[in-house]
Amino acid sequence: MADETVLLGHGSGGTMMKRIIDEVFAASYGSEELAQGDDAAVLPAPAPGERLAFSTDTFVVTPHFFPGGDIGRLAVCGTVNDVATSGAQAKYLSIGMVLEEGFPMNDLRRICETIAATAHEAGVHVVTGDTKVVNRGHGDGIYINTAGIGLIPANRSLSGANCRPGDKVLVSGTMGDHGIAIMSQREGLSFAAPIESDAAPLNHLIADVLEAAPDVRCFRDPTRGGLASTLNEFASQSNVDVVIREDDVPVKDAVRGACDMLGYDVFQVANEGKMVCVVPAEQSDAALAAMRANPYGADAALIGEVTEAATGRGPKVYVETGFGSRRILDMLVGEQLPRIC
Amino acid sequence: MADETVLLGHGSGGTMMKRIIDEVFAASYGSEELAQGDDAAVLPAPAPGERLAFSTDTFVVTPHFFPGGDIGRLAVCGTVNDVATSGAQAKYLSIGMVLEEGFPMNDLRRICETIAATAHEAGVHVVTGDTKVVNRGHGDGIYINTAGIGLIPANRSLSGANCRPGDKVLVSGTMGDHGIAIMSQREGLSFAAPIESDAAPLNHLIADVLEAAPDVRCFRDPTRGGLASTLNEFASQSNVDVVIREDDVPVKDAVRGACDMLGYDVFQVANEGKMVCVVPAEQSDAALAAMRANPYGADAALIGEVTEAATGRGPKVYVETGFGSRRILDMLVGEQLPRIC
Repeated sequence: MADETVLLGHGSGGTMMKRIIDEVFAASYGSEELAQGDDAAVLPAPAPGERLAFSTDTFVVTPHFFPGGDIGRLAVCGTVNDVATSGAQAKYLSIGMVLEEGFPMNDLRRICETIAATAHEAGVHVVTGDTKVVNRGHGDGIYINTAGIGLIPANRSLSGANCRPGDKVLVSGTMGDHGIAIMSQREGLSFAAPIESDAAPLNHLIADVLEAAPDVRCFRDPTRGGLASTLNEFASQSNVDVVIREDDVPVKDAVRGACDMLGYDVFQVANEGKMVCVVPAEQSDAALAAMRANPYGADAALIGEVTEAATGRGPKVYVETGFGSRRILDMLVGEQLPRIC
Repeated sequence: MADETVLLGHGSGGTMMKRIIDEVFAASYGSEELAQGDDAAVLPAPAPGERLAFSTDTFVVTPHFFPGGDIGRLAVCGTVNDVATSGAQAKYLSIGMVLEEGFPMNDLRRICETIAATAHEAGVHVVTGDTKVVNRGHGDGIYINTAGIGLIPANRSLSGANCRPGDKVLVSGTMGDHGIAIMSQREGLSFAAPIESDAAPLNHLIADVLEAAPDVRCFRDPTRGGLASTLNEFASQSNVDVVIREDDVPVKDAVRGACDMLGYDVFQVANEGKMVCVVPAEQSDAALAAMRANPYGADAALIGEVTEAATGRGPKVYVETGFGSRRILDMLVGEQLPRIC
């Protein structure tokens, strides 16, 4: 395709749009369903009793390319991970792009190749899509929405509302990598050790854990708001307290150093390739071993427990420090690191 | 909620985001699934043999409010209609919003109320969503992505690839209303008769037609690129020619006048509440009667036929004029009316 930048005509519904679809989108993440060319993808009937998991996420991250990934990898991982937290096998993705007039076509191709590679890794198919082009000055190059469908086997029921006192809390790896990688790239900060985003599809890791620990209560990926938001959501949904031990939460030295310098609480920094998992105590060893056996879970750790909500205080999350003190871990109120995903 | 405009913190993953979800989104289009608060909506198992229809669309229309609708009504109708063209019963919607810092909260509430009302009319549930906020100057107030899931009964198979010579071509009403309504609003044009957008959910109309004419080949809503794009897509997918009679295509006088004045071909102007339907000749009367019996199909008309592709010319769409001449109706190349949806 001769066009070097995105033009308004690429969102027109005419032959220019057909060309960008054929030569950029289908050429990278094409599928049998996309090739049908109808307005809706037609997908096979689920097996009897299989429920559907459905989730969506829009990605507005800036910069578009960063150490460890790009907006395309985020867009696939974010929705695949959200779908997988229900215990579903993630199957199908839609991609809706808002492109800004003037966006370099080579950047778009590069992002589409990443989408294709990440979808392949996750084992999901891009089956339907949409492209809009907005005039110069009304976007930020590219925004990507993905929606995803997964199939949930009969008898599986995971929810943040399932946590019970005595359950164990696991994380699949180090906290804060993604947010600090984006922040460093954006602000031109450099650290002794380079910090890379952890963006990764975790659906296979979740499947491995469910195989080893079938009574897992819930998974959630601690994205915006970080570990603090995820644990507070679990506490609130299940009406329990959660207690974690600060020293047991894996954090890379460089990330800890950056957080100290910039004044961030690493527990409130976003991750894009990590899972928090709550599991009955008797299956926690099996779940942890399964996480660690997966390439994306090598640094997995048991970080705390679910306890009864203290009377009259409402559900809370506590952090026990190495000095024996205990503090409340709140959700963020407003915005710490805008547009990290 | 005290905030009068959208702030970056509303997309943070923290308590401000929780508040906008509870007090704006859930307060208007809340559902049981949204209230679960997990990262993916869990939806019931389809009946045995039911396939899934899946589609997505992002809406970047400007202005956000226009005669006959707003961006919220478009966002629901666009995806409901795309899903319904497969013959599916549209069931579930996701909503992903990209809000610009400073967008008036009252405008957002108004749009969310429209989303709720239109979803109610269509009989679909908003089951999952996502909200991102971009900094001032990097959006245009609000962009909305919707993705939708429908269930396709066993044995139903509609596709633009199904058209056969001898089939009849119907439209469910007047062409060009939406594009001209947006254009008039944007440019401050006024006409003797006000022109309103036709934005409407057509899933019930499609169900009525399928009941009356079960062998319908395909439906498609002639949005961007208008009737010209839809008929050329059908011709290309089925490798046939399509011939329509100009005088039989319903067009409102005010829309025709505006198109003449502005130099647009009304067959290339977008519609957001119309269906093109191809049906075997023997069921065309029944299909037309069913369309006309639906409130959104009162002006439905039979406008032409499918014919064998003329040898060596490739699939083409022809328009027969009232003067007995015949012209080729091409797809648009680039953009005629940017950001009309």
